[in-house]
Amino acid sequence: MKLTDILLGRRLANRENTQQKIGWFAGVPAMGLDGLGSSSYGPEAALTILIPLGALSLAWIGWVIGPIVALLAILYLSYRQTILAYPSNGGAYTVAKDNLGAGASLLAAAALMIDYVLNVAVGISAGVGALTSSVPALHPWTLELCLGILAVVALANLRGTREAGWLFALPTYLFLASFLGLIGWGLVKLAMGHADPVIAPPPLHHAVEGAGLWLLLRAFAAGCTAMTGVEAVSNGVGAFREPVVREAHRTLTVICLALGLLLAGIAAVAHGYGLGAMDQTQAGYQSVLSQLAGAIVGHGPVYYVAMGSLLTVLCLSANTSFVGFPRICRLVALDDYLPRAFAVADRRLVFSAGVLFLTVTGGALLVMFGGITDRLIPLFAVGAFLTFTMSQLGMVVHWRRKGRAHWHRLALNALGAVTTMIALAIILAAKFTEGAWIVVIAVPLTILFLVAVKRHYAGVARRLAVHEPFVVEETEPPTVLVAYEQRNRMTDRALRFAMTLSPDVLAVHLLRLGGPDEEADVAAVKERFERDIAAPLAAAGLTPPRLITVPAPYREIQGPILDLVEKIDADTPGRSVAILIPELVLRHWWQRLLHGRHGRKLRAALLAHAGPRLMVITSPWRA
Amino acid sequence: MKLTDILLGRRLANRENTQQKIGWFAGVPAMGLDGLGSSSYGPEAALTILIPLGALSLAWIGWVIGPIVALLAILYLSYRQTILAYPSNGGAYTVAKDNLGAGASLLAAAALMIDYVLNVAVGISAGVGALTSSVPALHPWTLELCLGILAVVALANLRGTREAGWLFALPTYLFLASFLGLIGWGLVKLAMGHADPVIAPPPLHHAVEGAGLWLLLRAFAAGCTAMTGVEAVSNGVGAFREPVVREAHRTLTVICLALGLLLAGIAAVAHGYGLGAMDQTQAGYQSVLSQLAGAIVGHGPVYYVAMGSLLTVLCLSANTSFVGFPRICRLVALDDYLPRAFAVADRRLVFSAGVLFLTVTGGALLVMFGGITDRLIPLFAVGAFLTFTMSQLGMVVHWRRKGRAHWHRLALNALGAVTTMIALAIILAAKFTEGAWIVVIAVPLTILFLVAVKRHYAGVARRLAVHEPFVVEETEPPTVLVAYEQRNRMTDRALRFAMTLSPDVLAVHLLRLGGPDEEADVAAVKERFERDIAAPLAAAGLTPPRLITVPAPYREIQGPILDLVEKIDADTPGRSVAILIPELVLRHWWQRLLHGRHGRKLRAALLAHAGPRLMVITSPWRA
Repeated sequence: MKLTDILLGRRLANRENTQQKIGWFAGVPAMGLDGLGSSSYGPEAALTILIPLGALSLAWIGWVIGPIVALLAILYLSYRQTILAYPSNGGAYTVAKDNLGAGASLLAAAALMIDYVLNVAVGISAGVGALTSSVPALHPWTLELCLGILAVVALANLRGTREAGWLFALPTYLFLASFLGLIGWGLVKLAMGHADPVIAPPPLHHAVEGAGLWLLLRAFAAGCTAMTGVEAVSNGVGAFREPVVREAHRTLTVICLALGLLLAGIAAVAHGYGLGAMDQTQAGYQSVLSQLAGAIVGHGPVYYVAMGSLLTVLCLSANTSFVGFPRICRLVALDDYLPRAFAVADRRLVFSAGVLFLTVTGGALLVMFGGITDRLIPLFAVGAFLTFTMSQLGMVVHWRRKGRAHWHRLALNALGAVTTMIALAIILAAKFTEGAWIVVIAVPLTILFLVAVKRHYAGVARRLAVHEPFVVEETEPPTVLVAYEQRNRMTDRALRFAMTLSPDVLAVHLLRLGGPDEEADVAAVKERFERDIAAPLAAAGLTPPRLITVPAPYREIQGPILDLVEKIDADTPGRSVAILIPELVLRHWWQRLLHGRHGRKLRAALLAHAGPRLMVITSPWRA
Repeated sequence: MKLTDILLGRRLANRENTQQKIGWFAGVPAMGLDGLGSSSYGPEAALTILIPLGALSLAWIGWVIGPIVALLAILYLSYRQTILAYPSNGGAYTVAKDNLGAGASLLAAAALMIDYVLNVAVGISAGVGALTSSVPALHPWTLELCLGILAVVALANLRGTREAGWLFALPTYLFLASFLGLIGWGLVKLAMGHADPVIAPPPLHHAVEGAGLWLLLRAFAAGCTAMTGVEAVSNGVGAFREPVVREAHRTLTVICLALGLLLAGIAAVAHGYGLGAMDQTQAGYQSVLSQLAGAIVGHGPVYYVAMGSLLTVLCLSANTSFVGFPRICRLVALDDYLPRAFAVADRRLVFSAGVLFLTVTGGALLVMFGGITDRLIPLFAVGAFLTFTMSQLGMVVHWRRKGRAHWHRLALNALGAVTTMIALAIILAAKFTEGAWIVVIAVPLTILFLVAVKRHYAGVARRLAVHEPFVVEETEPPTVLVAYEQRNRMTDRALRFAMTLSPDVLAVHLLRLGGPDEEADVAAVKERFERDIAAPLAAAGLTPPRLITVPAPYREIQGPILDLVEKIDADTPGRSVAILIPELVLRHWWQRLLHGRHGRKLRAALLAHAGPRLMVITSPWRA
């Protein structure tokens, strides 16, 4: 357990829970890495769609990024309201459950869970992809790097959200400072008329086609990937310290404001310096943010600090999933739609079942795709926007129920619902054949699984439910059978225990358990039992246990004992039967390999097959 | 269990044991495949050492094979005697234990066990190697073929020695018939003066060096690999039906006679037709037996039948290990030097722990070496000849104890001991640097392991031993604690059970097991317990159980319950404590994922840590 303490920290008591809560400063790195990191690939993805426009794309970039920033603003304002209305947890699942019913809440939960799982694989592999394209020597280690980062993020989160937040604070704020600074400096230079880039981006070619509506919509859909991760704060409200709403609002504000400034700033600087996306498959490829930094400050130390912090933020963007996923799973599990283990706080007060599930599935996806999950990116925004829509719709119903005084809030969430729904439709249409269809299949399958789990729990609960008053039918002590191979300290103790429970004790000795070549001298066994145990007890005036010998023709203990129990049940109706199995408790796991499993097999068989009036008693003896 | 029945056959009762015994006809394929198959690589290995002699090797081949056949004859006669003297099991372990003491028996056991494990990997990969060199298209599937054959042999032996014997009878007797026929026909042709081979072997070049003693000794050592597997019959005597000695003698006779005829015949035909070994690394390589068959009958159907049966026999030569290894392990385990599982007959009356161990280690060796285990061949004969020597030495002591009347038997075994010891010395010297040193290390390590196992068992037995008469210190029923979460059918049954065991029943309810956010309304729990359980019982004139609520600050059940047990122990000295854990018994293993492991964890912790006066009771409730 020493190693666990070092890796995970000491265990925490329930009352230490409040000390594990975070404020906005740790909240931004804990929940915002996904959202902030996506500022690098959102505009890039949009500009990549615009490549056919060549130089003409500069004229249209504002028309693509503008609506995205507007949508972000709407989402920001409506999620502020959600946090205020649901200060314990404002995730899409809760909001939909409260206002739209169980079906809608399962839809939101499934979409969000799939989104979080994908984000782990996509986030890490995108980060490592960016890393290996700047340091090509690392390329052969792609998968190892991915799994290593996954392990670091998982371990940090097993220690707690608070520790993960503090651990990842430095790269996050460094990234914000450097890129906001860079963009600001670029805008100042442009405003002052210095439009000559330090390092000139490759010139944009002439347009090979005109700007059509469908192209712009596709660019918009691609750019919307910048917005995934915005729901994380509402879903992680439970992680914040008091005053919860204020800390959550500040966190959301920092994330959305920074993201909005980055998006708008990137668009403005790209426009000013004439930056466009480059074909990733071509040699000499540079990302838009790399061109942007180069154009503003050249390849000096600032460039490397900025790009380094960007890479770190990208690599760690999976952290958002690790904060959100366990919390959504906990809520779903509390409603019996997921195994109850997801709702249990572990030694660090973390819902570690969710963390571990995310680690395993994320790791499996990374291994399956060899650390290159580009093909999963199209799947990504669908879940997020489906979640947005469900959450906004739920809030609309929420405000309607609250009455007329809240009409302006209702209007805001309605605007959010409509815009995200439109965005979702565009994304689905634009990306359906690229892989978004997988989400369309995966979401219903996930819902089916959730419902199946609920059905199992409901069935068990129904069978367990008791409506009659408590009655006692029998008061006589049970017949106690003691598994008895030969006399030793362990069986002596077992017999003594049995005699405290009931005057009716039977020692059961099985013959030829080891196989046909085993000697079985029944007379000697009986004689020794009589001499060593029965006679001294009788002399002391006590009822001694009786010995029965039973053949074990198939060398297993279960069959003969079950038959015997059935016979006793028939002979003494209304009385229970208890079977006492002496168990050798070993100090080390490997010692188990040296000792038989007869006892454990017998116990399992009795629990699985014996009648309703049976108990299995283990009397431990430490070797 | 349906699948198990199909794969392994129905389970067998102890009394069916005699029907599983085999006669000599099934005994030859079951135990002889190793010995017979080695006729192909023994002479080949000897001739390979003689390659530098070129055409001169023909003059010396008789001087190498002659002593090997003589040694085989000595071994045959002395193992006949061993079987007669030890009709239940005449393996080297038993003989050495009876006559030379524990140390010598462990040496023999370790050598034999290592030999058998190596034989699995080496036998299968040699067979598959021969197969892929005749059918090169199969070469990419080397490892798969090896593992497939391993699986077939393992499965056949899990069904029983009898079934394996019958399954492998056809290729074995086909091999014997075809090669003995071929050699006989070749000798007839040679005797009649037809010394022209149908297909001429490549001409032998001139000698590059003269025949030195060291070269001949090395050739002898290499040829001795033909003798491994001869001890299998003595070690597997227990597999034969009555009259055991006759069937075992016949099996041994068939194997040794056939092997001797093959060795002598190969030498004679090789001499007559001028066959020599070819360099395996050169293109156009043909094995000696392939050249031999080609020289006698050309590449007609007889050639292909003969070579096909040879390949099958080689591939299946691992079977000898599967017959011998589980039996030697059983004997060693009966003496407590190996885990007892090795001594337990399974549902098919097979000692399946040995079969499975052999399968796993053999498979691991094959995977580790990619199915090419040439490098293990030098290790191989060392174990076998060490075993021979120990067994013969044991028999010498045996006859000396029997008295003067047995002096001729003593003389024969003494001759066997001396010759095998000399052969062992030659083999060790000739092959030490090639890998035989590994055996010199592995044997003592294995012995250390065996002794460590024995020491563990002896320690446990010493601590379990009881010398005093049986006494009862307490007669009062124990305090019974019942783990109580909420009232349902399962806890109702548990409380009823508890009340039949003792008037002193405590229902223990733990608070905030799920984490700090769980509601814990102690008053409501107490009130419900009072109303639903305690009040009706009191009204019926019975002593109701008491309810205690205990906080679980670290969300685990073990700590608080262990503290409580300690407290009760201190309050009521001399009385036992029983803890009754209701357990939900689920129909399918995957349902376990949906239910907590609190009960199992609590049970494990109680067994491992609680004081000496504690019982753990499981009351099953089938969901």
